[in-house]
Amino acid sequence: MKGLRRLVLDVLKPHEPKTIVFALKLSELENVDGVNIHLSEIDQATENIKITILGNNLDYEQIKGVIEDLGGVIHSVDEVVAGKIIVESVKTEQD
Amino acid sequence: MKGLRRLVLDVLKPHEPKTIVFALKLSELENVDGVNIHLSEIDQATENIKITILGNNLDYEQIKGVIEDLGGVIHSVDEVVAGKIIVESVKTEQD
Amino acid sequence: MKGLRRLVLDVLKPHEPKTIVFALKLSELENVDGVNIHLSEIDQATENIKITILGNNLDYEQIKGVIEDLGGVIHSVDEVVAGKIIVESVKTEQD
Amino acid sequence: MKGLRRLVLDVLKPHEPKTIVFALKLSELENVDGVNIHLSEIDQATENIKITILGNNLDYEQIKGVIEDLGGVIHSVDEVVAGKIIVESVKTEQD
Amino acid sequence: MKGLRRLVLDVLKPHEPKTIVFALKLSELENVDGVNIHLSEIDQATENIKITILGNNLDYEQIKGVIEDLGGVIHSVDEVVAGKIIVESVKTEQD
Amino acid sequence: MKGLRRLVLDVLKPHEPKTIVFALKLSELENVDGVNIHLSEIDQATENIKITILGNNLDYEQIKGVIEDLGGVIHSVDEVVAGKIIVESVKTEQD
Amino acid sequence: MKGLRRLVLDVLKPHEPKTIVFALKLSELENVDGVNIHLSEIDQATENIKITILGNNLDYEQIKGVIEDLGGVIHSVDEVVAGKIIVESVKTEQD
Repeated sequence: MKGLRRLVLDVLKPHEPKTIVFALKLSELENVDGVNIHLSEIDQATENIKITILGNNLDYEQIKGVIEDLGGVIHSVDEVVAGKIIVESVKTEQD
Repeated sequence: MKGLRRLVLDVLKPHEPKTIVFALKLSELENVDGVNIHLSEIDQATENIKITILGNNLDYEQIKGVIEDLGGVIHSVDEVVAGKIIVESVKTEQD
Repeated sequence: MKGLRRLVLDVLKPHEPKTIVFALKLSELENVDGVNIHLSEIDQATENIKITILGNNLDYEQIKGVIEDLGGVIHSVDEVVAGKIIVESVKTEQD
Repeated sequence: MKGLRRLVLDVLKPHEPKTIVFALKLSELENVDGVNIHLSEIDQATENIKITILGNNLDYEQIKGVIEDLGGVIHSVDEVVAGKIIVESVKTEQD
Repeated sequence: MKGLRRLVLDVLKPHEPKTIVFALKLSELENVDGVNIHLSEIDQATENIKITILGNNLDYEQIKGVIEDLGGVIHSVDEVVAGKIIVESVKTEQD
Repeated sequence: MKGLRRLVLDVLKPHEPKTIVFALKLSELENVDGVNIHLSEIDQATENIKITILGNNLDYEQIKGVIEDLGGVIHSVDEVVAGKIIVESVKTEQD
Repeated sequence: MKGLRRLVLDVLKPHEPKTIVFALKLSELENVDGVNIHLSEIDQATENIKITILGNNLDYEQIKGVIEDLGGVIHSVDEVVAGKIIVESVKTEQD
């Protein structure tokens, strides 16, 4: 296990295609083990979604390509996890 | 294991048939392992319910059909999980 | 395992018989594995209780009958779980 | 395993005998596996305590008798658990 | 396993001897498996500490004696656990 | 297992290179098992990120070097874990 | 296993040496299994840190000596754990 292991992306998308299509397309990429998409906000023309992707040696550009082909835009990369094991962020007194 | 693995749907339904009927009908669909329905709000004529469905290679259109046949309307798809393994959404500093 | 697996009922009952009697009667029903009753509120003449029932292929009408025979009224069905496995409700950004 | 499996009792007691005596007496009852007593409030003459009792086929009247013999009064039965397995109360959107 | 299994004591003590001495002395008592002391408050002359003691068939009077010999006073017994197994307090709707 | 085992760093970085590059570079260091980077804040020219690094006998100066080579500045070391086993910070009454 | 098993210390230290040096020095002491240091506050000249130390039969005076040699001052001992097993503090209704 190495490289990018988990990504959390804040994405802006049009209403169509549905989040279901985003989840299926991303989950079918070679190094992806699973995808979780949460609906954060719905506006008149767009939707804010949070995409969590888990896998091994994920290819960020490939993922970005799938999202953009479906009309989405990556607003920010909120979490990146890389390496041999999945490390969780640790809450400290500064949080 | 592949395809759609878990869905969380915000659904508006009339008082009848009861949520029990929705849960039983959905749970009897071929690829569904389990269904959880929470009552979010009761109004004079309608009820807001949150349906969590877990399974393997779930068929969204089939699920939508069952809900609509029972008089319900899918208000939004709040979570979609797809792929080989069930991935949970990760809380980040942006949440 | 199939059918109704877990129910959460909001029930209004008179002070007598006690919740202990409700719990024992319900727990003795054939498909019931366990019952949990929480006291939500006590008023002068009535009590609001939350009944959680776990089992396999639960019979809602039978459960309703036991509750009504003891003088209780099912105010609402707050959760229904059905299918091969017990699925928990998932918290999403919309909650 | 059957019958009453766990009870949570809100009890009003005088300062003497101490909660330690209540815990020991209750824990020595035949079907009781364990007892937990939390001190909720201390007033000039009385104390409010929360008693959690776990066991198999618990005898409510016997438990009530021990508490009353020690000068306590069961103010309310806040939780009753009965049946083959211990079922926890489930939090729903209504809570 | 029987008798008193766990105690949580609210204790007022002078600055000396330190909580370290309290913890060591109590942990060396025959039926004590472990001791946890949290510093709740420090005032000019005294300290409020919360002592959690875990063991089998604990001797309250012996524990009280050790605390008092070190200059401490048991302000209240906030939790008592007794019996064959350690039972945790259960949160109910009344809490 | 010995030396530095886990670090949580508050880092200020320019928008480029992306956090993905930081995560990959750090995860490829010899004693690093895994890296988690959370995006704390985005400003016009810079980003605040929280880097959690897990490994065995981590080399702080080497890590600092990688971060600085990529244009980042370690604002503070919010957590340090060292020794044979990973010890979590304990919440006390003082927190 | 016996004696002091875990300590949580509130320590005031100068900016130099860094918390990394404190963690390494303390983790190399004979009976110490692991050390966790959280940065609580940074002021112009000093830093408040929370040190959690886990081990077997810890030597408080030796630990205090290491901290003071590095220029730190133990402000308070917020938690002490002693005995055969590590006991966690129990939350009661009084907290």
